[in-house]
Amino acid sequence: MNGFFITFEGPDACGKSTQINLLKNYFQDKGYDVVVTREPGGTLISEKIRALILDKENKNMSYKTEALLYAASRAQHIDELIKPSLLQGKIVICDRFIDSSLIYQGIGRNLGIDKIYNLNLFAIEDTLPDITIIFQIEEEEIQRRKNRRKNLDRLECEKDEFHKKVYEGYKILKDIYPERIKNVDANGTVKQVHERIIKLIQNAMEK
Amino acid sequence: MNGFFITFEGPDACGKSTQINLLKNYFQDKGYDVVVTREPGGTLISEKIRALILDKENKNMSYKTEALLYAASRAQHIDELIKPSLLQGKIVICDRFIDSSLIYQGIGRNLGIDKIYNLNLFAIEDTLPDITIIFQIEEEEIQRRKNRRKNLDRLECEKDEFHKKVYEGYKILKDIYPERIKNVDANGTVKQVHERIIKLIQNAMEK
Repeated sequence: MNGFFITFEGPDACGKSTQINLLKNYFQDKGYDVVVTREPGGTLISEKIRALILDKENKNMSYKTEALLYAASRAQHIDELIKPSLLQGKIVICDRFIDSSLIYQGIGRNLGIDKIYNLNLFAIEDTLPDITIIFQIEEEEIQRRKNRRKNLDRLECEKDEFHKKVYEGYKILKDIYPERIKNVDANGTVKQVHERIIKLIQNAMEK
Repeated sequence: MNGFFITFEGPDACGKSTQINLLKNYFQDKGYDVVVTREPGGTLISEKIRALILDKENKNMSYKTEALLYAASRAQHIDELIKPSLLQGKIVICDRFIDSSLIYQGIGRNLGIDKIYNLNLFAIEDTLPDITIIFQIEEEEIQRRKNRRKNLDRLECEKDEFHKKVYEGYKILKDIYPERIKNVDANGTVKQVHERIIKLIQNAMEK
């Protein structure tokens, strides 16, 4: 494939959306064709699955069902949007991807990283990201930002213990997939973080 | 577990529903506590997933997404209804289960029986049926019955080639899982078929 596939990961409220927007502008200014998308979602069917997953009414959803729905949404996203875009040589920037499942379901729900990885390989086959950027940010800063948010979804409403496991999980993931995953220090100004991200991506594109 | 888990399988319009009803009455007359359920579905969340899978609007659904959604629905069904019922010593009769995925997605969609089996083991863990009855019926008879049906769902609307593969798949599945699966000759009167089924189940319960 001729395109380049970038995924952004990190706990809720870590600042991904702002940085994805800046990165999109950066690539567009350089003349690249850029697709920005998100998970769960990104296609009509995937967004319907997203609605099922995040709906607070579905409070009895089993952890395995949750993991399988994320993978189902991802399979559709890959087949319908991500893979065709990469084949057309585009840069695809995705807000959350397989690593969110590894962290939220594998670690947060205790289903195990290996099991969730294998499940997701069924969904994505060989379309792994070229680079995954994980935002590392102080826990207190996340809490400050989250306190300002309203209308939390089913997962955002989970208890502190779950979010604590997710937070810790994001700190160790780079050690498991060191080639693909790069951590970025997400403390500091928007501009500082943007520059750190550009540097990481330039290095990965040069390889 | 003290309960007994029976699943019915076969191509559309093979006569499963009628026989499930008769079997339920048979067990209730003997004083058993019986739960009759179906797939995809059986719980509130599983029925929502069922609606997504079968909706003709979702015509772009990828085969892997379809397989993952069936497994997601099944995981919820197991956790919320089937496993608790078996633990309470009930007889659970389910219209379609894991073998429908093996046939429709593994063979019909060419995803491979092994891959679909492993995917579903994630969903159901150790809760396999005690006996699975596969209806064997002449293809012409199925066609006659289907011609009388209206409001076909997304899978029922698939082309003949798909249904042909499903029909052939149901003929060979017993050879792959000979311990669990029993074929029943579903030609003949309703009463004849019912008696054949009772015999197979009695044998399995005596083991």
